[in-house]
Amino acid sequence: MESTIIYGKNAVIEALKQGDREFNKILISNNSRADIKIEQIKQLALKHGVIFQFVTKEKLNSLEPEGKHQGVIALIAPIKYTELEDFIETNRGEQISVVILDGVEDSHNVGAIIRSCVCAGVKGIILPSRRGVLINSTVEKTSAGAINHISIIKTNSLVNAIQKLKENDYWVIASDHHAEQNHYEIDYTDMNFALIMGAEHAGISKSLLKLSDFKVKIPMLTNFNSLNVSNATAIILFEAVRQRRQKCQKKSTR
Amino acid sequence: MESTIIYGKNAVIEALKQGDREFNKILISNNSRADIKIEQIKQLALKHGVIFQFVTKEKLNSLEPEGKHQGVIALIAPIKYTELEDFIETNRGEQISVVILDGVEDSHNVGAIIRSCVCAGVKGIILPSRRGVLINSTVEKTSAGAINHISIIKTNSLVNAIQKLKENDYWVIASDHHAEQNHYEIDYTDMNFALIMGAEHAGISKSLLKLSDFKVKIPMLTNFNSLNVSNATAIILFEAVRQRRQKCQKKSTR
Repeated sequence: MESTIIYGKNAVIEALKQGDREFNKILISNNSRADIKIEQIKQLALKHGVIFQFVTKEKLNSLEPEGKHQGVIALIAPIKYTELEDFIETNRGEQISVVILDGVEDSHNVGAIIRSCVCAGVKGIILPSRRGVLINSTVEKTSAGAINHISIIKTNSLVNAIQKLKENDYWVIASDHHAEQNHYEIDYTDMNFALIMGAEHAGISKSLLKLSDFKVKIPMLTNFNSLNVSNATAIILFEAVRQRRQKCQKKSTR
Repeated sequence: MESTIIYGKNAVIEALKQGDREFNKILISNNSRADIKIEQIKQLALKHGVIFQFVTKEKLNSLEPEGKHQGVIALIAPIKYTELEDFIETNRGEQISVVILDGVEDSHNVGAIIRSCVCAGVKGIILPSRRGVLINSTVEKTSAGAINHISIIKTNSLVNAIQKLKENDYWVIASDHHAEQNHYEIDYTDMNFALIMGAEHAGISKSLLKLSDFKVKIPMLTNFNSLNVSNATAIILFEAVRQRRQKCQKKSTR
């Protein structure tokens, strides 16, 4: 089978738990036998019928030269991308949210964003096929396994994707530090939304800004105006979480 | 002089702008002459009397083997740490905030946290001398120069540091995912606060949790409960920013 690697204990545990990734085998360092998480990986591998082998650290280093594998590497089928139409069809409902990354280039940022998205209940991430990063081993590792809990959609045209979302009653929010409206001035409780985050340096393309229903900024308390894109994404998503939870609480205490 | 390197265009620009870092010299790649930011670095270096040299990419790679230098490396005196007593003395006032990192281990996380802190108006970061990372080249790079806009305090004892802050009317908030209170249920507008964030895996030490006035969690919308520590820090700090700005606006529209 076509195969990629994922590495790091949490990344491998989450992929095993999730259950619909196709494993070739799992390689475990000789030295890691006593570890609780390694034990969990062995148990999960047995449960799901996945082969595991003990190998030298050198073997692991040859597969993942940065040495961040924490003693575990899985050979695994690449993540399956979802078609946007299928995503929309299977996620009909209230308060659905998706995040669109307009060319984010750093794998660590993409991984951290996926992690925050899953924590914030976001159902899908949309990536352009030809700019920015797609899913790779570093993204999987940095996402700490979150990637198995969210739909990943790649598209040749973010413009078409956004139009399709709008036709399906998603409100489109662009994070843009030139915006006049603050991110917390939007009411996230009564809508499905698609949040567009721009690339690290270039920000959001003009063609996408034009399509957005809201442009929001994160106000700063100093003149130093330069948040990391994964932190900016987390701030906006968890403002939506705060609003949605507080509204929910108000309803339940009525 | 004792010297370290900082690399990356923004990191070098911010260090030059800030003006109180002692530069040895700046090395610029032969190939980067046409770039706007490189031009800015040359202008700032001339203004501040800092020597710059054009060198081969190989020379830069030998100083920063990961190759993330973007064509610029500065040889520079290490960052100056601030004494907590001096910090407290020079930052008397309302709505002062500091962040305490209890053993955060990943340099990228520390850099991103410093960046968010500066954006959120946080005045100081407290790091333990003997656990977690201190300031290194990766932290400087990841902070995108933010490190020059905040006091960095290192301490042999976080317990003593927290007690000292409490004696000086700081409220101590611990981010703990076992907490009952949600982070947005605290009123950040009427206090100076010290926010403690725990290490990536271990969380906050018990001895520090005991000293905290509030324990807060970031509520999730799913069972996947694992935010990256820099994203978690940004979420809490920008909730404080939201509250402080909204209160300020209410006052000014009365």
